[in-house]
Amino acid sequence: MAFVIGVVGSGDTDKRHDPLAMEVGSLIARHGAMMVCGGLSGIMEAASRGAAQEKGTTIGILPGSDNREANPHITIAIPTGLGVARNVLVVRTADALVALPGGPGTLSEIALALNVGKPVVDLGDWKIEGTRAAATAQEAVTLALDLCREGSAGGGQGSPGR
Amino acid sequence: MAFVIGVVGSGDTDKRHDPLAMEVGSLIARHGAMMVCGGLSGIMEAASRGAAQEKGTTIGILPGSDNREANPHITIAIPTGLGVARNVLVVRTADALVALPGGPGTLSEIALALNVGKPVVDLGDWKIEGTRAAATAQEAVTLALDLCREGSAGGGQGSPGR
Amino acid sequence: MAFVIGVVGSGDTDKRHDPLAMEVGSLIARHGAMMVCGGLSGIMEAASRGAAQEKGTTIGILPGSDNREANPHITIAIPTGLGVARNVLVVRTADALVALPGGPGTLSEIALALNVGKPVVDLGDWKIEGTRAAATAQEAVTLALDLCREGSAGGGQGSPGR
Amino acid sequence: MAFVIGVVGSGDTDKRHDPLAMEVGSLIARHGAMMVCGGLSGIMEAASRGAAQEKGTTIGILPGSDNREANPHITIAIPTGLGVARNVLVVRTADALVALPGGPGTLSEIALALNVGKPVVDLGDWKIEGTRAAATAQEAVTLALDLCREGSAGGGQGSPGR
Repeated sequence: MAFVIGVVGSGDTDKRHDPLAMEVGSLIARHGAMMVCGGLSGIMEAASRGAAQEKGTTIGILPGSDNREANPHITIAIPTGLGVARNVLVVRTADALVALPGGPGTLSEIALALNVGKPVVDLGDWKIEGTRAAATAQEAVTLALDLCREGSAGGGQGSPGR
Repeated sequence: MAFVIGVVGSGDTDKRHDPLAMEVGSLIARHGAMMVCGGLSGIMEAASRGAAQEKGTTIGILPGSDNREANPHITIAIPTGLGVARNVLVVRTADALVALPGGPGTLSEIALALNVGKPVVDLGDWKIEGTRAAATAQEAVTLALDLCREGSAGGGQGSPGR
Repeated sequence: MAFVIGVVGSGDTDKRHDPLAMEVGSLIARHGAMMVCGGLSGIMEAASRGAAQEKGTTIGILPGSDNREANPHITIAIPTGLGVARNVLVVRTADALVALPGGPGTLSEIALALNVGKPVVDLGDWKIEGTRAAATAQEAVTLALDLCREGSAGGGQGSPGR
Repeated sequence: MAFVIGVVGSGDTDKRHDPLAMEVGSLIARHGAMMVCGGLSGIMEAASRGAAQEKGTTIGILPGSDNREANPHITIAIPTGLGVARNVLVVRTADALVALPGGPGTLSEIALALNVGKPVVDLGDWKIEGTRAAATAQEAVTLALDLCREGSAGGGQGSPGR
């Protein structure tokens, strides 16, 4: 019974938010969930590193067509060749999203998630209607997992009942 | 030399904003530009109606795979079968976007446009960093066309120099 | 009542098949149908030229994100940024396909069309189960239009009854 | 150093080919490679079952948007919501394909693979130019792995040098 938590945020390295992202990734893995992200650098890489250190599965859905563009902590790379349209796949693969600070790409993922009915936990002060705010990585991951459970009675990837 | 202006906004019919959308569509056509939208109802249909009444070309990029889901004012229907991923194509087909009020789908189109560097004129009080505000349909379409010209020195669809 | 005929074939210029493609495009436009193709060179460009000379509408669904990659005879460019996944959109936009000689990209379009139930007229000696063979451009376009009518009782893009 | 082998073939259950598919999946996992497929039934399910029995990782790239449509042997489900356009992602995620018997959907995957330069091993009597024939599951998987190694000097998913 493994849920998939999406982590979205800036592709740029950021001393302030990368440790937060790493903690989010780490907690996702420790709770036995899989992580999905856009597979590149910045927040995506920090969260992947956190999850990988805890032996978690990290799915990286890449905009390009070469799996070598994935950050080194991605265990499953999906090179889509779809450019930014891959943002839709990050959202659809996740049972819930944790949104860290970022730019318009991250905003598009939050909006697409709300558009298709996936819960979004706001850990980036986005203050967008329909999201749920969290103050810490622990609170964000706990809330995201609760929302996964609500959204899927006994579901999730690899659940016995699927 | 025809630019393509994208019109994004709510898929629900709305007495207050539909006339504004219709005026936007009408002005796009009168300025000799083509219009692209998601092809469905609400703001999309009102804008398409406005453009069609002025004999404009209206491109509808549909989420489903049946062109009959297009509103009756679409002259070119592109049934994608891609679901919300078609939002990316609305954005990529447009040289600039005019954003009216809407929900998360519209927000995703604004964010995707900013993400790929397409100018966005805000006619919906979105107040998102990187967009340009307009107060009236006339102002919005004039500004959108100016931004098209800036973005493309003599370019645009069907331009002789392409 | 305008049907959309897709023309698929090699992206390379070919002295032997380009005149055939041009004739196909020309006939599509003379019959009042729109043409859709991948928007690039070779067969796609020759067919677009034929259609454009007869004042037809030519839709070019591009793999890249820049509409300037369209051949000069495309009247409506859809820059998808989806790479080869745009082949799916060529197929979905067409009511029927005419397949000229080509390589694996063309073969993928024939197969995708059959997969989603769109009729394919074989003008390239493909001999694939489920396609209908034609010996001349005239025969191919006539057959394609017949198949459009069968597939859609009074439908097609821009038909009054839609 | 885990390569990803794609298995493509009919979505219908088939007493004759399902055991072959299961053997292919099993061999992929025993060689330490990951398997990717379209995630549904028939050949896809049989191959997934074979891989899962050997504790392999099975990636299922689904046409719909609900991960519950995956067959029960998929360990990583990617619900794309892209319909048949997901065939492109199966191909792009794989380092090489093994093609079993199937219909136009399978043919589209073979053609898309050749189009983007991915090697295809023909275990389904497809006889398509550019593919490499194999007579048994063992021969097919061995050949596919060889072709992965050729295509990527030391690469593959999760390889240290990536």
